[in-house]
Amino acid sequence: MTTPAGRGRPRDGATDLAILRAGLELFIERGVEGTSIEQIAKKAGVGKPTIYRRWANKEELIAAAMETLIVDEAGWASQEAVDTESPYALVEAAIDRAAAAVTTVQYRALVARVFGSAVSHPQLMSTYWQRYILPRRKLAAALLARARELGTVADDVDVDVDVAIDMMVGAVTYRVLQPDPPDVDEMRRYLRAVYRQIGLLPP
Amino acid sequence: MTTPAGRGRPRDGATDLAILRAGLELFIERGVEGTSIEQIAKKAGVGKPTIYRRWANKEELIAAAMETLIVDEAGWASQEAVDTESPYALVEAAIDRAAAAVTTVQYRALVARVFGSAVSHPQLMSTYWQRYILPRRKLAAALLARARELGTVADDVDVDVDVAIDMMVGAVTYRVLQPDPPDVDEMRRYLRAVYRQIGLLPP
Repeated sequence: MTTPAGRGRPRDGATDLAILRAGLELFIERGVEGTSIEQIAKKAGVGKPTIYRRWANKEELIAAAMETLIVDEAGWASQEAVDTESPYALVEAAIDRAAAAVTTVQYRALVARVFGSAVSHPQLMSTYWQRYILPRRKLAAALLARARELGTVADDVDVDVDVAIDMMVGAVTYRVLQPDPPDVDEMRRYLRAVYRQIGLLPP
Repeated sequence: MTTPAGRGRPRDGATDLAILRAGLELFIERGVEGTSIEQIAKKAGVGKPTIYRRWANKEELIAAAMETLIVDEAGWASQEAVDTESPYALVEAAIDRAAAAVTTVQYRALVARVFGSAVSHPQLMSTYWQRYILPRRKLAAALLARARELGTVADDVDVDVDVAIDMMVGAVTYRVLQPDPPDVDEMRRYLRAVYRQIGLLPP
């Protein structure tokens, strides 16, 4: 999918993986502009031609790395759970894990880099969006719909479900990039406040 | 303030300004990692020593550029207006201008770069925060407090005023960095939905 047409599928899985991992690590550490194919080749222990046989440029390589290495299971709930369990209980059960996940320096650094390249290299945001964000948004939308059925989220939120999701996700990603990033305990309280405000936790 | 101690204040205002403008433009276009003192010197039409006499490195120069060039008047309301006028009316009156401002490619690109450097170069986010964000947050907090007095914003929002502000600002900055950024009309509707959700516009 991310392999350019005409270049064929990569044939060596282990080499591929080493290159993609090196690419993602360098992207997170230095951004697109600070990363070169030469650095990726060196870090992965391969020659530049090995990389260019697979990807046309660093943007395609980094997009492919996100496509391959970023896990797409949303983690905090299955569609079945959303359909049958209480939204309050589901959200409450997910808070510890979410607070731990979004406060790691790896998460903060990846979000910073993806946001940072959104205007200059929209392909990277686009891949991250498809791969990581959309599956989570689908679940969040189902959860909001269910909460509305149950009457814990007001009707007017449902009208703008994408806005409500942006308000939750936007607040959290914005918060972890602020000058004084929260620790796990503070993030737990923060997430509770956000979910309460939207109506996904009791007032 | 951003001039390193011992280097003295810059003496040539026009040269300073040319250097700072070049630094900010290159930062927005290429990020911190893609910008060098050499490029800034070339763009500003000065020698590298002229820059190094004023700033120790590119991070300090870019921070100084934000300090100097980013206008700090929040624009959408004065403290007096917040104290005396209806929050609904103030928010409504600010929407056209805000929608136009946040949908420009310059705004989107600057936000992307500042967020993008938040983990690798926290000094830049810190300067942006002090210079641009904090004055706006102060006004927004006053507006929320006033709306709460008037009963249009629920009490529980007031408990977490910083969270409510993050939800508004976070949503908007997140939205303009998404793969399909909104035009001015869509942003107007989007802002209305966000303010309605918080209680700063009528349901």
